[in-house]
Amino acid sequence: MSGVVRAAAVQLRIDVDDPDGNRARAAEAVADAAASGAQLVVLPELACTGYVFTDRAESRRRAEPRDGRTLSAWRDLSARHRLVLVGGFAELGEDGEVYNSAALCDGGELRAVYRKAHLWDQEAEHFRPGDQRPPVLATSAGRVGLMICYDLEFPEWTRLVALAGAQVLAAPTNWPAALPRPAGERAIEVVRVQASASVNRLFVVAADRCGPERGVDWVGGSVIANPDGYPLAGPPATPTPALLLADLDLTQADDKATGPRNDVFTDRRPHLYEP
Amino acid sequence: MSGVVRAAAVQLRIDVDDPDGNRARAAEAVADAAASGAQLVVLPELACTGYVFTDRAESRRRAEPRDGRTLSAWRDLSARHRLVLVGGFAELGEDGEVYNSAALCDGGELRAVYRKAHLWDQEAEHFRPGDQRPPVLATSAGRVGLMICYDLEFPEWTRLVALAGAQVLAAPTNWPAALPRPAGERAIEVVRVQASASVNRLFVVAADRCGPERGVDWVGGSVIANPDGYPLAGPPATPTPALLLADLDLTQADDKATGPRNDVFTDRRPHLYEP
Repeated sequence: MSGVVRAAAVQLRIDVDDPDGNRARAAEAVADAAASGAQLVVLPELACTGYVFTDRAESRRRAEPRDGRTLSAWRDLSARHRLVLVGGFAELGEDGEVYNSAALCDGGELRAVYRKAHLWDQEAEHFRPGDQRPPVLATSAGRVGLMICYDLEFPEWTRLVALAGAQVLAAPTNWPAALPRPAGERAIEVVRVQASASVNRLFVVAADRCGPERGVDWVGGSVIANPDGYPLAGPPATPTPALLLADLDLTQADDKATGPRNDVFTDRRPHLYEP
Repeated sequence: MSGVVRAAAVQLRIDVDDPDGNRARAAEAVADAAASGAQLVVLPELACTGYVFTDRAESRRRAEPRDGRTLSAWRDLSARHRLVLVGGFAELGEDGEVYNSAALCDGGELRAVYRKAHLWDQEAEHFRPGDQRPPVLATSAGRVGLMICYDLEFPEWTRLVALAGAQVLAAPTNWPAALPRPAGERAIEVVRVQASASVNRLFVVAADRCGPERGVDWVGGSVIANPDGYPLAGPPATPTPALLLADLDLTQADDKATGPRNDVFTDRRPHLYEP
């Protein structure tokens, strides 16, 4: 697919004690994004459950199968608003395991579920890591790849998605505001997104969260970066709810050239990279 | 080696028509850095020849063997000032080929030469690409890895250096100011350095150049980034000569942990990355 796609990153306030409210806020945000012409909407990681679970019993109780309420709602939203909807959810697998997953719904259909492969901190207590590569799908809003939050810190992972043909990397995140940040500096989470967009020449739509939760604050660093690595929208100045919108000219992501003789893919020296 | 090392990135004005002047300016800058206590000094790419060669005859004429004037001077400087000196030079190889190389001298000894493996734009007309991985050496200023400019755009390359144990990545660069940069944005070249430092938890000392040369301007984006990815020094506000200094606590680069349960190396899933 070529042409211009309007993308939205939805930065949501999420409350681990209010799953119904989270689902409602997500639905409202998707409707707002659609009203603004968005064809691809990305919600945060664990958008409807929250993140800071007290114990394994709570995360398991909140997890849902693929035909559960959250993904049913997202399928409906993607049909009603005729858009591609990506968001993170706590997945109760058919194998009985709980995963930190992302779903992609397009026109009413659940097209893909990705299970986070790199787990952050206490997630390892709640989730089984995925063991599959990120999917890249041809959708009504271009070729979209999926990954989640900490996955973005592994350039090997973003490279795989790019080499598999993604024009857009859709990344639900929950970035805890853990690291001290020097005054005047952009959050390093956003910097890493910019670099990933740049070295792979693709768009990245990262949707972060906000709202303190059981003692944890969040970066609120949602951003839409272009293939040059510069933000088209975001990050917001404060970690508050935000709807970021940007028009993505997908042909820019198909062109991996960085000059008359250079190309970020063909300039690679893969045989020198092998372990 | 552990402890704190004072590092310098020297941003130089370089003139392709004045190799002797370039060599003199580099020597003066190294002396200034030493007077400020620097134990590791990084000069730009092609620090004494300049970059924008008219034709192959010129680049070949300017290239020097490893026992030529430039590296002899750098060996002497590293001995006289008791420091590790890294810089870029046009190398006339024993095989008769010309390479875009970086040298590391420590205490009067030429310890390593690295030949740039990823060539930018017209470099392919002047230089043969290297076919060896970047070296990582135990020096009097810590374990130092070498690469050059466009190499930094390949996360596979920076990862190799990190996995080989580098505490500091020393990177001579000549970043042409080619891309339009949105107002208020830091140059993407610097952003990529920050991300590389962060995902690998090492220090990066990148020394860029300035001074217009045959119609080309330069980013002047020299920077010293810490393992969190934030600049300790630079980038300078303008592309003018600058001496950046920072104290690197090398133990920070030995610690790949990013939290009580996370580690940027052991959290990798290498078997999932294989092509």
